[in-house]
Amino acid sequence: CFSNCGSPGSGSLDYDNSENQLFLEEERRMSFTGFRCLEISRWLICGLIGVLTGLIACFIDIVVEKVARYKYEAIKQNIERFTEVGGLSISLILWAVLNFSFVMVGSILVAFFEPVAAGSGIPQIKCYLNGVKIPRVVRLKTLVIKVCGVICSVIGGLAVGKEGPMIHSGAVVAAGVSQGRSTTLKKDLMIFEYFRRDTEKRDFVSAGAAAGVSAAFGAPVGGVLFSLEEGASFWNQMLTWRIFFASMISTFTLNFFLSISHNNTGDLSNPGLINFGRFESENLNYNLYEIPLFIAMGAIVLGALFNFLNYWLTIFRIRYVHRPCLQVMEAMLVAAVTASVSFTMIYFSNDCQPLDSEHAEEYPLQLFCADGEYNSMATTFFNTPEKSVRSLFHNQPGTYNPLTLGLFTITYFFLACWTYGLAVSAGVFIPSLLIGAAWGRLCGIWLASLASIWADPGKYALIGAAAQLGGIVRMTLSLTVILVEATGNVTYGLPIMLVLLTAKIVGDYFQEGLYDIHIKLQSVPFLHWEAPATSHWLTTREVMSSPVTCLNRIEKVGTIVDVLSNTSTNHNGFPVVVQPSKLCGLILRSQLIVLLKHKVFVELAGSRLTRRKLQLKDFRDAYPRFPPIQSIHVSQDERECLMDLTEFMNPTPYTVTQVTDSTETTLTDVIRTLIQNNFHLQETSLPRVFKLFRALGLRHLVVIDDANRVRVLNLYKSKVFSRKLKIVTMILFRWLDW
Amino acid sequence: CFSNCGSPGSGSLDYDNSENQLFLEEERRMSFTGFRCLEISRWLICGLIGVLTGLIACFIDIVVEKVARYKYEAIKQNIERFTEVGGLSISLILWAVLNFSFVMVGSILVAFFEPVAAGSGIPQIKCYLNGVKIPRVVRLKTLVIKVCGVICSVIGGLAVGKEGPMIHSGAVVAAGVSQGRSTTLKKDLMIFEYFRRDTEKRDFVSAGAAAGVSAAFGAPVGGVLFSLEEGASFWNQMLTWRIFFASMISTFTLNFFLSISHNNTGDLSNPGLINFGRFESENLNYNLYEIPLFIAMGAIVLGALFNFLNYWLTIFRIRYVHRPCLQVMEAMLVAAVTASVSFTMIYFSNDCQPLDSEHAEEYPLQLFCADGEYNSMATTFFNTPEKSVRSLFHNQPGTYNPLTLGLFTITYFFLACWTYGLAVSAGVFIPSLLIGAAWGRLCGIWLASLASIWADPGKYALIGAAAQLGGIVRMTLSLTVILVEATGNVTYGLPIMLVLLTAKIVGDYFQEGLYDIHIKLQSVPFLHWEAPATSHWLTTREVMSSPVTCLNRIEKVGTIVDVLSNTSTNHNGFPVVVQPSKLCGLILRSQLIVLLKHKVFVELAGSRLTRRKLQLKDFRDAYPRFPPIQSIHVSQDERECLMDLTEFMNPTPYTVTQVTDSTETTLTDVIRTLIQNNFHLQETSLPRVFKLFRALGLRHLVVIDDANRVRVLNLYKSKVFSRKLKIVTMILFRWLDW
Repeated sequence: CFSNCGSPGSGSLDYDNSENQLFLEEERRMSFTGFRCLEISRWLICGLIGVLTGLIACFIDIVVEKVARYKYEAIKQNIERFTEVGGLSISLILWAVLNFSFVMVGSILVAFFEPVAAGSGIPQIKCYLNGVKIPRVVRLKTLVIKVCGVICSVIGGLAVGKEGPMIHSGAVVAAGVSQGRSTTLKKDLMIFEYFRRDTEKRDFVSAGAAAGVSAAFGAPVGGVLFSLEEGASFWNQMLTWRIFFASMISTFTLNFFLSISHNNTGDLSNPGLINFGRFESENLNYNLYEIPLFIAMGAIVLGALFNFLNYWLTIFRIRYVHRPCLQVMEAMLVAAVTASVSFTMIYFSNDCQPLDSEHAEEYPLQLFCADGEYNSMATTFFNTPEKSVRSLFHNQPGTYNPLTLGLFTITYFFLACWTYGLAVSAGVFIPSLLIGAAWGRLCGIWLASLASIWADPGKYALIGAAAQLGGIVRMTLSLTVILVEATGNVTYGLPIMLVLLTAKIVGDYFQEGLYDIHIKLQSVPFLHWEAPATSHWLTTREVMSSPVTCLNRIEKVGTIVDVLSNTSTNHNGFPVVVQPSKLCGLILRSQLIVLLKHKVFVELAGSRLTRRKLQLKDFRDAYPRFPPIQSIHVSQDERECLMDLTEFMNPTPYTVTQVTDSTETTLTDVIRTLIQNNFHLQETSLPRVFKLFRALGLRHLVVIDDANRVRVLNLYKSKVFSRKLKIVTMILFRWLDW
Repeated sequence: CFSNCGSPGSGSLDYDNSENQLFLEEERRMSFTGFRCLEISRWLICGLIGVLTGLIACFIDIVVEKVARYKYEAIKQNIERFTEVGGLSISLILWAVLNFSFVMVGSILVAFFEPVAAGSGIPQIKCYLNGVKIPRVVRLKTLVIKVCGVICSVIGGLAVGKEGPMIHSGAVVAAGVSQGRSTTLKKDLMIFEYFRRDTEKRDFVSAGAAAGVSAAFGAPVGGVLFSLEEGASFWNQMLTWRIFFASMISTFTLNFFLSISHNNTGDLSNPGLINFGRFESENLNYNLYEIPLFIAMGAIVLGALFNFLNYWLTIFRIRYVHRPCLQVMEAMLVAAVTASVSFTMIYFSNDCQPLDSEHAEEYPLQLFCADGEYNSMATTFFNTPEKSVRSLFHNQPGTYNPLTLGLFTITYFFLACWTYGLAVSAGVFIPSLLIGAAWGRLCGIWLASLASIWADPGKYALIGAAAQLGGIVRMTLSLTVILVEATGNVTYGLPIMLVLLTAKIVGDYFQEGLYDIHIKLQSVPFLHWEAPATSHWLTTREVMSSPVTCLNRIEKVGTIVDVLSNTSTNHNGFPVVVQPSKLCGLILRSQLIVLLKHKVFVELAGSRLTRRKLQLKDFRDAYPRFPPIQSIHVSQDERECLMDLTEFMNPTPYTVTQVTDSTETTLTDVIRTLIQNNFHLQETSLPRVFKLFRALGLRHLVVIDDANRVRVLNLYKSKVFSRKLKIVTMILFRWLDW
C-alpha cells in the first residue's frame, strides 16, 4: 500500500500567504466586523468538526460492538456445542471463515477503491500537518472507505485497533467542513471561501486530528498535544484554543451518544473508544523503589524489535506485494492465520480460572475446563482487543498463568507486526497496548514471585503497555497525556513519562519510530524539527537549487507555458524579476495556471484580452486541485501575448542574502589587507535558513546577492547528509519544490 | 511596586543568535559528541531545575504549615480562654499583632531590598518569556526575598496564596542553574558557558516556570502548557520534552519530600502545594442539563470586576504609594484590617455546625456555639486559604449557611482585591479560587433549593472557583489542565473548559486579564500573538524607525562611542554597511561595548592594539550585564583608531524589502502605461513583518531597498494604533529597541 503513496501528484503545502495585490486589497477592504465574523466561523467550524468526529467514532464503536457480539456469540455457541461431542475443527472453520469474509470486504474496499485509506493514516496526517500533501488523503471518499474498512478489520478479528484511524477520520472531516465543499460529492456550499488556502486548511486539519485523538482515547488535552507534537511549528494561542475546543466537543459528543446507546443517557463515563477502566484506589500508588523497575521496563526493546521486523516486512511488501489483488489475498491470509492461531492457543491452553460474578468475562469459553471455570487464554484472544486490554489491566491477580501471558505475548506480537501495513484500515495503538499489557503483567507476576513483594499485576500491565507503545511510536509528551487521560488518573503521570522517555531514548538508538519509518519508506521528504547539530558549516549556497528559473514581471505567455511544461525543472514557485535580474516578487505555479486558464493576457497593443479583472475568488475556486499545465490549451497567437504578473505575484517573498564579493574601494590599502585576511565570503548558514523554513512554514526562499539580484531560488532537491556526520539520511522537505 | 518596574535598565532580549564568524567557527569546530554533551547537559540542568524548584516549594510549604499551626493554635487557645470570661478584644489584638508583624517583615524585605519580588511575579515572567527583560527579575537575591516574603505574607494571614510566586521562584532557579554562576554570590562555576545567551537562557527559564507551576499545583502537564501559552512562539519538540521533564521532576521531588515530612515516606499523594483533594465518586458525574448552568456561572463577571477595581487601585498606588515606607505601611494596614474583618465576621456569625469526626476541621472554633458544634464562618477565615478551599470543595452539603458564604465572598473579594499589588510576595491564584469556591458553593445551594434538584455544592464550588480564576487571569488551555490535574480527575475537563472559555470571552469584553493589566501599567511594551486583524494596510514604511544609525564595517572608534553615547538614538542594534550604504551585517550594542572594553582597535598603521584575538568566551563572560557606555573610557588617541566589525557582526541579519521605485526602461511604452496603472509601490505589510518578529523572536529587522541599500533599520518606537480601527492601544514590543 505504501508503495504508491509517494506517487507523483503529491507535493508540499504552502503555509506562507501569498500577499499579492489582490489579497492585500481584500484584507484592506475588510472591516473589523468582517474579521470578527471570520473568527466566529472558525470556532463554529471547530465545533462542527468535534461533533462530526465524535459521531463517526460513535458510529464505528456501536457497529463494531453489535456485530462483534453476534460473531462471538455465534462462535461461542458453536464451540460449546462441539466441545463435548468433538469436531471443534468445525468451530475453527466457522471462526476463520467469519474473520476471512469481513477482512476480505475491508481489504477489497481499501486496496481497490482507496489505497490511501490503508493503515492508521497517522503517518499521512503527520505529513500533511508538516506540509507534505499526499494525494486524496483528506477526501470524503477516503473517509467513507476508512470507516467501513476499520469496522471490517476490527470485526474480522485482526490484531488491530480502531483508534488510530479516528485521527485520520477527524482530519478528513476537518478538511471537508472547513472548505464548505466536497469534490467527491461535487457540491459547493459557497461558504467558508476565505478558508480555501493551505494555511487555514492546515489549522483546521490539526483541529480535526486532535478531535480524532480525543474521541479515540477520551483525551482532549492529549489530542491537542498530539496535534502540536506532530504538526505544529508556530504556536498560536487562539488556534490552540480552537483545537482544544474541537477536542472537547468531540469527546463529549462521543460520550453523550454512547451513553444513549447504552440506555444510560447522561452518564458521561465513556469519553473515548478505548476506556482503560478505573484503576482501583488501592492499586493507585506506586513506591519509590518501583521507579527503577518501571524505567527498566521502558528499556525493554520489544518496541524497537517490532519496528525492525515491520520495516523489513514493509520493504518486502513494497517490492513484491504491490498489486491490489495480492494485497487482498495477503490480508485474507492474515485473517485466517490469526483465527487459526488464536483457536490453537485457546485449544491447547489449560489455564482454567474460576468464573466469579465480579469480573464477569464477556464471552467466557468453558472449553475443556471444569464447570464454573473458564479458559483464561480465551479472554485475551476471544474478544475485541480493547476488552482484552481492560481485562489485562483490571482482572484480579492470579487470573492469568504466566505461561498463558508469555505465549499470548509472543503470538500476538508477531500477528500484530504482520498485520500493520496490510491493505486494511487499522491502527497499531491497541495491539501495542495489548502486547505491552501482556508482558507487563507477566513482569508484575514475576516480580511478585521473585522478590516476594506484592506487585499489582494490573499496574505493571499499564507500565508495560506504555513501554511497548512508546517503543513503537516514540511519542512522549502527547502519549503521556493520552495514557494519563485514558486511565483517568494523574498519579501515574511520572512513571508513564519516565517509561516513555526511556523507551524513546533506547529505541531511537536502534531505529526511528514506526510512523517515521513508514514516512521514510513512502519516500516522503520530511523536514525535522531542527537542523542537524553539526550543520553550521553548510551554507545556503550548498543546498540551494541552481540554476534558477526566473520569470520577468511582464512575461511572454509562451515562455511561461514552456517553463511550466518543462519537467526537468518541475518547480512550484518562480521568482519574478525586473531587468537586470532584480528580484521583485515570487509567483506560484498554481497562480500561473489559474492565470493561463482565465487567459489573463495582454496583447502587445496593450489591450487586455480578458473580459473581467481576475479576483481572489477565482484562485480560491480552483483550490486545492489546480489543473496540470498539459490540460490548458494555449494557441500559437496567444503564446505571443504578454502576461502582467504584478498583481498576482507575492511582492515581498522572504529572502536570505548571499554576499558574493567584497570589492571595497574606499579603504586604505592597509585595511584592505586586513579585510582580506579576515573577511570570508559570508553566507547564511543552514541552521539559520532551516529555522526560517520551519518557523514560518515556507516552501520557497529566495537567495539574493547583495545587490538584490536573484542568484538562485533555493528549491532544494532532497539532500542526503554524509553518514560520517552520524546523521541518518535526512531529507529536507518543503525545500523540495515538488 | 510596579511603578519602578518599567524603569530604565529594562530592555528586550534577543532571541536571534548572532551568527558572526566567532560563533560559526565555534559551531564548526564542535564535534557531534560535543553537541551530544550539550544536549545531555540541557537534560541535566532541567532535572536540577526540577529538583531545586521542588525543594523550594517543599521548604515553603513546611515552614508555612508549621508556623501557621503555632499561630492558629495560639489564637485558638486565646479565643477559647476569653470566649466565656469575655474580653475577646484581646484575642483580636493578638491576632492582628501576629499578622501585622509577619506582614511587616515580609513587606520590609520586599519594599526596601528587592521591589521586583513583590506580587506573584507572573507578569514579570510572562514578560521575560516574551522577550522583555525586567531588571533583577531572575537574580538569586530576588529568589531569597521572594521565598521569605511569601512565607511571611501567607503566615501573616493576608488574602494571598503561595502558588503564584513558585512560578517566579522556578524561573529564577532555572536562570541561575543554567548559567552556572551567580552575580549575587559573585561565584562563577565555569560550567554551562555555552548557555550564556538569551536564546538558551529563555528556554531554561520556561522550564523553570513550568516546574514552578508543576510544584505549585501538582500539574506537570499544566506547567508545560503554562510555559507554552504564556511564553512560547516557536514550538520545539525537544525543548517541550525537557520542560516536561523538569515539571515532572519538580512535582515528584515535592511529593517525595512532603511525604517524608508527613512521616509517610513514599506516599505520593501530595503532588502540589495546593491539593484540591479527591472528589468522591458519587459527586463525579455531572448531568447534561448542568452544562448551561456552568456556562452561566462562567459568565458571572466577578473576575472582571476584580480586575477593574484592582486596575484603579494600582493606578492610585503608582501615583501616591510609591515610597517604600508608605508601601510597608499600606501592607501593615491591610494585615490589620484583614485580621479585624475576619474576627468581626467570625464574631457576629451565628452559623453553628455539628462537629463530626469525619470531616474534622483543623482549627474548629467553638466561640458562642453549643458544645460539640463549631463556628462555620471560622473554617473559611481562620485557616490558611489552601485549607479553606479544600473545605469549600469537600465539606458535606449543609456545612455552610448561604449567609455565611455570601458574607465571606463579599469581604474576601474586597480584601483580596486590595491585597493584590501590595509590596509583599504573594499570589492571586488561591484567593481567586477561594472567592470562586465560596460563591460557587452558594450557587450550588441556591440551585438545590430553587429547582429542588440535588446539586452537590462541592461541584459547584469547583466550577465557581474556575470561573473566578478564569475571569481574573484569562488563561484557558493551561488553566483547564492545571485545574484538572489539581482535582486529579479528568471528568470535569469539559465543564471547566467551557467555564474558563466563557469567563475569558465575557471578561475580555470588559477588560484584559489581571496580568496583562499589570504589564500594561508597568509600561512594558508587549507584543501580542498576532498583528491586529485590520492592519494589512500598514506597511513597514509606516512603522519603521528613521533615520537609521548605521556603522561602517571599518569604523572610527570615536564614531562608535558617539553613537552609543547618544541618548536620543538609544538603539541596541546597528546595521553595518559598506559604502555606499550597502548592508553587510548587524551588530549589537552589547557586542560593541565588549569590543570597546577590550579595546579591539586597529591603528591606522594597521597594527592591532590588543594582545589577543577576542573570543566568544569574552562575550559570554560579559553576559548578561554589559556595562553602560559611560563606564568605558576611551582616550582621545584611541578615538582616532579604527574598529573592524567584520568578525563580530552578524553577517546575515533578517531583512525585508521595500521597493522604492519602478523605473523600468526595457519595456515598450504601451506596457509602461499599463504598469503605471497597476503597479503601486509594494512594501512588506505589517502582519507579515509581525509574523517574522513573533515566530523568530527577533529584536531587529533591517529594511532594505531593492538594491540592498539600508533604507532604515526598523527599530520601532512604540506605536499606538488608531482608535478608529477599534484596536485597543497596542504596543509593539521587540520592535522597540530599548
